[in-house]
Amino acid sequence: MHPLATILAACLLLPVIGGCTAVPERAADPLPSWRDAAARTAIIDFVERTTDPNGPDFLAEADRVAVFDNDGTLWAEQPIYFQFDFALERMRDLVDENPELATREPFQTAIDGEAIDFLESGHAGLLEFLLATHSGTTTAEFEVAAETWIREARHPVTDRPYPAMVYQPMIELLAYLERNGFSNWIVSGGGADFMRVFAEETYGIPPGRVIGSEIELEHRSTPEGGVLVRMPGLETLNDGPQKVIGIHRAIGRRPVAAFGNSDGDLAMLEWTAGGDGPTLCVYVHHTDEIREWAYDRGSKIGGLDRGLDAAAVRSWPVIDMKRDWEQVFPDRN
Amino acid sequence: MHPLATILAACLLLPVIGGCTAVPERAADPLPSWRDAAARTAIIDFVERTTDPNGPDFLAEADRVAVFDNDGTLWAEQPIYFQFDFALERMRDLVDENPELATREPFQTAIDGEAIDFLESGHAGLLEFLLATHSGTTTAEFEVAAETWIREARHPVTDRPYPAMVYQPMIELLAYLERNGFSNWIVSGGGADFMRVFAEETYGIPPGRVIGSEIELEHRSTPEGGVLVRMPGLETLNDGPQKVIGIHRAIGRRPVAAFGNSDGDLAMLEWTAGGDGPTLCVYVHHTDEIREWAYDRGSKIGGLDRGLDAAAVRSWPVIDMKRDWEQVFPDRN
Repeated sequence: MHPLATILAACLLLPVIGGCTAVPERAADPLPSWRDAAARTAIIDFVERTTDPNGPDFLAEADRVAVFDNDGTLWAEQPIYFQFDFALERMRDLVDENPELATREPFQTAIDGEAIDFLESGHAGLLEFLLATHSGTTTAEFEVAAETWIREARHPVTDRPYPAMVYQPMIELLAYLERNGFSNWIVSGGGADFMRVFAEETYGIPPGRVIGSEIELEHRSTPEGGVLVRMPGLETLNDGPQKVIGIHRAIGRRPVAAFGNSDGDLAMLEWTAGGDGPTLCVYVHHTDEIREWAYDRGSKIGGLDRGLDAAAVRSWPVIDMKRDWEQVFPDRN
Repeated sequence: MHPLATILAACLLLPVIGGCTAVPERAADPLPSWRDAAARTAIIDFVERTTDPNGPDFLAEADRVAVFDNDGTLWAEQPIYFQFDFALERMRDLVDENPELATREPFQTAIDGEAIDFLESGHAGLLEFLLATHSGTTTAEFEVAAETWIREARHPVTDRPYPAMVYQPMIELLAYLERNGFSNWIVSGGGADFMRVFAEETYGIPPGRVIGSEIELEHRSTPEGGVLVRMPGLETLNDGPQKVIGIHRAIGRRPVAAFGNSDGDLAMLEWTAGGDGPTLCVYVHHTDEIREWAYDRGSKIGGLDRGLDAAAVRSWPVIDMKRDWEQVFPDRN
């Protein structure tokens, strides 16, 4: 998708103990886009302590489980969740097929108004819109639709492809953890099947390590071995405390490191912090209105209020994006 | 748990490309407990074809996903599912704490009758009993209870510890696939949290690759980071077509190899067989009334009827346990 994915893929193909010889300068500085601030120090200290076989904080590789929120933590989420933009395109396709839909809710509001109207219309309208645009296909057909969109769509503000809206420092962090024997998992409110079409190429995270919201599925027998049909019902909304349940169901182990950016990640960070051994909980704080966006308490998207207070009380590192990151997005080319 | 687990663990710790140098004789014969019959030939042929980078059937490691039923496929399931024996012990503990429970259903039948009565009482009674004995604790407490049981309990017929009721040929198969870059997953009707307490040590399969039935969980906030409480409701019964849904949700990829022993595995085998590339679907057929048990069509446990017909029509290899396995269970010591 972009050159970083290629570099990352090259790193991941090498044995862990061999390090990443494809990018020798990275071996010297594992986090080149991070300024020398408290968050960077805390991360490197944690990795060095937990991988030192002679130290008191050593963790077996099986226990090195790191969980990451996606929207606002690994890639941007403004001016609107990227998956919402995908849903708008799905809606346009559906209306092309059946123009009458344009006069019915929840589509009429989406066509007449601004996307943000949906977030303001409250949970029910948003959910109805997402279910309407994400159902009615087989899982295989949905995968093709999402893959096509992620390849072709552009961010409305930066005009970048969406996979180029990832945070370069977090890409480096994922690779650094992976090289040190950690297994990285996405634990997001976004749709699992939506994220799976780009998570492996973009983050080096395979589909089996992507935990997200899920739509109801129905199995139907066919001569070709069956299909799974996406039904217009919500199976799980993977946000808040449900993230802890999602982690338990999919990983079956308590993480030792957790990264998030909103109050919806707080239960996950608290669950991680509650483990017996060494833990690392980090919040990404959106403070850069020039290079990215600046928002926290009161934001409709990625609101960070209770989480900011919790981080202060518990001395969790908080990444000040403006201050701590030398570079936010990957280089364009 | 038993010496094989140690050997298996030693194999798994070595890099895949290095093979298993701890047990050199295994490198010569990867499946020493398998007699030279059609099932063994089909398995080895499949692995060699899909790992030959110059052949037309080569699969990237990421696509080498193998799924295994557990009860009756990786370990025995007679005279009653092993997890049911665990439930009986949980019931005795609950009755010790509160003797009045012994006079109430579903416990009275379990105390007065034979365990098999529950299977005959139909799905509702069985489910009620399982939910009653598997709920009311935190996930952490449940893990301790299941770990204690698996360490101490003995099989009622063989007097072996339950982890010694695994099939030696299947343990060899798991290790052989793992050495060849496959990722093995359990996809079972058994409880996910129950299987996770022994799957890693017994099979080399980590908790995050165990897909099973799930009880409802409720997150409760605590000063220590929260707890997950097991509620007396069924979240998913991972059997039949639900196995396909479970695979999609947890793995997000279509498997290329599937192993089962009952009609409850048929949808999973058909789903696997429906993939585009090379696939391998295998049934374990319980034909050995001396060394194990002999049962198929009409059995209340692990009934294999439609599956046997499907295997014949589709030319899937069927393991004839009596004929094809030199050894069934691991050596005792």
